[in-house]
Amino acid sequence: MSESSGEIKVIPIKGVGEVRPGDDVAAVLVEAFGAQGQRFETGDVLVVTQKIVSKAEGRIVDLATVEPSETALELSRINSRDARQIEVALRETAKVVRMDMQRGILISETRHGFICANAGVDGSNLAEATEVSMLPLDSDVSADRIRAGVRERTGADVAVIISDTFGRPWRTGQTNVAIGLSGMQAVHDYRGQTDSAGLVLVVTEIAVADELASAAELATGKLDRVPAAVIRGYPFQPGKGRATDLVRPAEFDLFR
Amino acid sequence: MSESSGEIKVIPIKGVGEVRPGDDVAAVLVEAFGAQGQRFETGDVLVVTQKIVSKAEGRIVDLATVEPSETALELSRINSRDARQIEVALRETAKVVRMDMQRGILISETRHGFICANAGVDGSNLAEATEVSMLPLDSDVSADRIRAGVRERTGADVAVIISDTFGRPWRTGQTNVAIGLSGMQAVHDYRGQTDSAGLVLVVTEIAVADELASAAELATGKLDRVPAAVIRGYPFQPGKGRATDLVRPAEFDLFR
Repeated sequence: MSESSGEIKVIPIKGVGEVRPGDDVAAVLVEAFGAQGQRFETGDVLVVTQKIVSKAEGRIVDLATVEPSETALELSRINSRDARQIEVALRETAKVVRMDMQRGILISETRHGFICANAGVDGSNLAEATEVSMLPLDSDVSADRIRAGVRERTGADVAVIISDTFGRPWRTGQTNVAIGLSGMQAVHDYRGQTDSAGLVLVVTEIAVADELASAAELATGKLDRVPAAVIRGYPFQPGKGRATDLVRPAEFDLFR
Repeated sequence: MSESSGEIKVIPIKGVGEVRPGDDVAAVLVEAFGAQGQRFETGDVLVVTQKIVSKAEGRIVDLATVEPSETALELSRINSRDARQIEVALRETAKVVRMDMQRGILISETRHGFICANAGVDGSNLAEATEVSMLPLDSDVSADRIRAGVRERTGADVAVIISDTFGRPWRTGQTNVAIGLSGMQAVHDYRGQTDSAGLVLVVTEIAVADELASAAELATGKLDRVPAAVIRGYPFQPGKGRATDLVRPAEFDLFR
């Protein structure tokens, strides 16, 4: 199978200007990657951070237009965040997984099924201080669109991951995970394959799309205008994987 | 600060033979890396998978010597795994986080504070089919030892991560995380720094040690004899970080 054997490169795409609603993310990234003397190759994995995708898709709310509910005001009194931003998060929440009124924490299940703080609503790295971004409506479809756009402009068949920064239980800090996927399997399935002693592996499924998102974060960081990275040399399993494949069904989840 | 700006490489260390109790992991890796025409450089991050560290430290049990308890036998009847392997996992468990007697799942808190299935006890990639491996007793100290060994042999000051493959709530599949760390901070702390709009970032702490472990897994995989990888070009924050820094204290964890 496509066991990884060689060197892998993570190449940041820099020099991307402010992305605005209606912008073509694929076009923006192809241009910026070209400007640094690089071009996309078939087999690359293009990891795009959520924020520019949300911006391009107009998934931005001006807080001046938002009226906070009682719940938002109550959470705001505890965590000192803008009640209108909390209100947007509540509206983006399909299901509340935990609401901790002692510490003002909201853990949401989003419409996609992802579980994360504040339904992925976030106020950083936006043009205006009064704006917040929401996750793309269907981030797998967003990934499809970017993939098609890169192919159309360059001829390269790349896999695309849209990444976001999520916390997790049990461990401190956040890591980048895949919230959108196109052109590869989300999980590398080892079931039925054997280890060096000829034994079947117990560890069977590696969430490679999440690992690729994490690897890309090492090159993009959080502060620079580096909204994407290209991972070259990783032999992914091609296919029609979706980031929603990475959602553990509630009935198999001991921790909801 | 040390914002990442350039290309990052993940270089697998191949051709490592069977590691046995008492072997010097640093010596083994320096030799194998040299044999493929490479050498360690100051600033590299060396990611070593847990299994060879456990082997070298003799953290291996022959199941022929293990008498399963009633609980182990009961779990074994449900999940069809070897009751003696389950017994070892129970003995390695400092605290049971969840025991699901319907599906035969054991989620343990280990002596280090890590939360994972079966306390990290695992039967794959060992010399004998009747052996299982346990996590290193103190995997941060194991990382210190490997780091000192690499410096002694090559002069290079590298950071060392010991990685293992953990599941997580909410998302399917497993990813590699850091269970041992030496020579760098576990978390990249953005608190007080500002984004492109001059706003303070809400997302403040990135678990870079876990992201590095995940990036390395893309190059090491699960089946080949590739027990380590070198990550070159990542500007980590030097320091005395420990993998146990990544354990979320129980009182701040909504999901135990």
